[in-house]
Amino acid sequence: ALALHDRLAKPPGSLGRLEALGARLAGMAGTCPPPIPMPATVAVFAGDHGVVASGVTPWPQAITAAMVSTFAIGRAAVNAIARQVGAEVVVVDVGVACPYPPSPNVVDRKVRPGTDDLSVGPAMSTADAQAALDAGRDVARSLVAAGNRCLVTGDMGIGNTTPSAAIIAALTGADPVDATGRGTGIDDAMLVTKQRIVTGAVARASGLPPLELLAEIGGLEIAALAGYVLGGASAGVPVVLDGVIALAGAVVAVAIEPSCRDFLIAGHRSVEPAASAALTHLGLIPLLDLDLRLGEGTGALLALPLVQAAARVLNEMATLDELS
Amino acid sequence: ALALHDRLAKPPGSLGRLEALGARLAGMAGTCPPPIPMPATVAVFAGDHGVVASGVTPWPQAITAAMVSTFAIGRAAVNAIARQVGAEVVVVDVGVACPYPPSPNVVDRKVRPGTDDLSVGPAMSTADAQAALDAGRDVARSLVAAGNRCLVTGDMGIGNTTPSAAIIAALTGADPVDATGRGTGIDDAMLVTKQRIVTGAVARASGLPPLELLAEIGGLEIAALAGYVLGGASAGVPVVLDGVIALAGAVVAVAIEPSCRDFLIAGHRSVEPAASAALTHLGLIPLLDLDLRLGEGTGALLALPLVQAAARVLNEMATLDELS
Repeated sequence: ALALHDRLAKPPGSLGRLEALGARLAGMAGTCPPPIPMPATVAVFAGDHGVVASGVTPWPQAITAAMVSTFAIGRAAVNAIARQVGAEVVVVDVGVACPYPPSPNVVDRKVRPGTDDLSVGPAMSTADAQAALDAGRDVARSLVAAGNRCLVTGDMGIGNTTPSAAIIAALTGADPVDATGRGTGIDDAMLVTKQRIVTGAVARASGLPPLELLAEIGGLEIAALAGYVLGGASAGVPVVLDGVIALAGAVVAVAIEPSCRDFLIAGHRSVEPAASAALTHLGLIPLLDLDLRLGEGTGALLALPLVQAAARVLNEMATLDELS
Repeated sequence: ALALHDRLAKPPGSLGRLEALGARLAGMAGTCPPPIPMPATVAVFAGDHGVVASGVTPWPQAITAAMVSTFAIGRAAVNAIARQVGAEVVVVDVGVACPYPPSPNVVDRKVRPGTDDLSVGPAMSTADAQAALDAGRDVARSLVAAGNRCLVTGDMGIGNTTPSAAIIAALTGADPVDATGRGTGIDDAMLVTKQRIVTGAVARASGLPPLELLAEIGGLEIAALAGYVLGGASAGVPVVLDGVIALAGAVVAVAIEPSCRDFLIAGHRSVEPAASAALTHLGLIPLLDLDLRLGEGTGALLALPLVQAAARVLNEMATLDELS
């Protein structure tokens, strides 16, 4: 793909990082030019977190359920951006705690109604972590079976930056305090509490194998995202990662199966500090840096046209030979 | 728009720079939520440069004509990326020097077959600069009249980073040597020649009014881009700027009519040093930073989905009131 890029009707290297991305897509597909990674779907995995009882966020768990309903009616940020970039949205409940009106637009793979408080004990059993991981892998497989050629990660779960920071610190060696961010925008007092909880979680979970680590300090949607990454990679399609929650799932997936890293594309650099630690650990340079910290898959979707364009130029451009 | 953003179903500020961009789009439209800036068209203005005779690039002028033909058959990078992001491409010849097969896909607004060598005298007459500027303004007006709600800048012209660097240095006060870049990838010896020519051009043109400056050291497609910016801004639509050539046109346009700055969106940060000088001068922060240096409108088109998404979230997201 890099050699082809040098023969296209443009100065060599002039498409910058798009050229390296195109070469990676060719590597993922095992063919050059690579297929344009479309259609694409963003799977938004939703789950709740018992740790919210310990004061890591001002938002109640009911918001997770309310946002699932908002996704289902197509009125969240992820829906608007998906429409703009031509992606489909699938919402998967792997662990929402509060009730919400049933919807045909939500896939029910609920393992349990939220985790336990990871600051006082294990977040869940290894069986639950495995079930959530399997749900994510199943969703990836079924999306690829339905014709998708690109998977985009999405997430929803009040409190989920706490387990994400802990997982990333435990698996990358990042300092737990440094890895802890303000999530949706918490104040200084809450940040101190969150740093203390993340530090304790990392101390307890360091050295655990990936599944046991997910069970001890993880989240249901994070486990599902790890499975989604594994499923997408094993199906040979690119997986575009959103922010810190997706990156937590990705570092777990890479701990389980290192070769899945080759199929990962970092959509953007979240302002959450653990996101940068995970990106460095994974050796990924994000495509966008727009100070986003919403999650849902929004940053990954905004990067999707760049990924698709990187493949498209390799497919559709004339070569210099053809011009002369 | 900023107040609306704080009421949408997401944590305040969590869409980062997309929120500020949405507010700017509302300001341009004079209404909130702003209309989604689509459909969009990229106008690729093509012209040649007599300064190539003085050794500022290894590429011959014939490449400009060859690329115009490549645009016309839809096989250049700009065409591939435009298809990905749903934009139309219009090619406008304002000054191509070499012949190419006639095509219904090329708008003929040729003022003259390329400029004279700006290193030995004026590039063109002020009448020619005005004619090229008028061509760009006419294209902008007709695109808006045809229903476009976003204009994207594109350019083609072998040698055009030399006049662009000179114009930007002359109008921003940047050091001419620092502002001179390697363009398509010139070697050290050629870079020294180019720096000398840019320095001489800036010395000759500093202090000239915008039109006279364009005539002395400019280019036909740069003058057209200045007119295109003025035409788009006066029609009230956002103009998404590509790299250093577009930015040269934009600094001229802002020198002519300062209020047009409010309608400018910087698509990306080109690796050309003059691009960063112009961005600072214009007070614009680019959306993308992908080490691009191709031109044609490629970087601006890659940013287009971000611009459209910024407006779309303001139009389509639920508010927190609606959730509760």
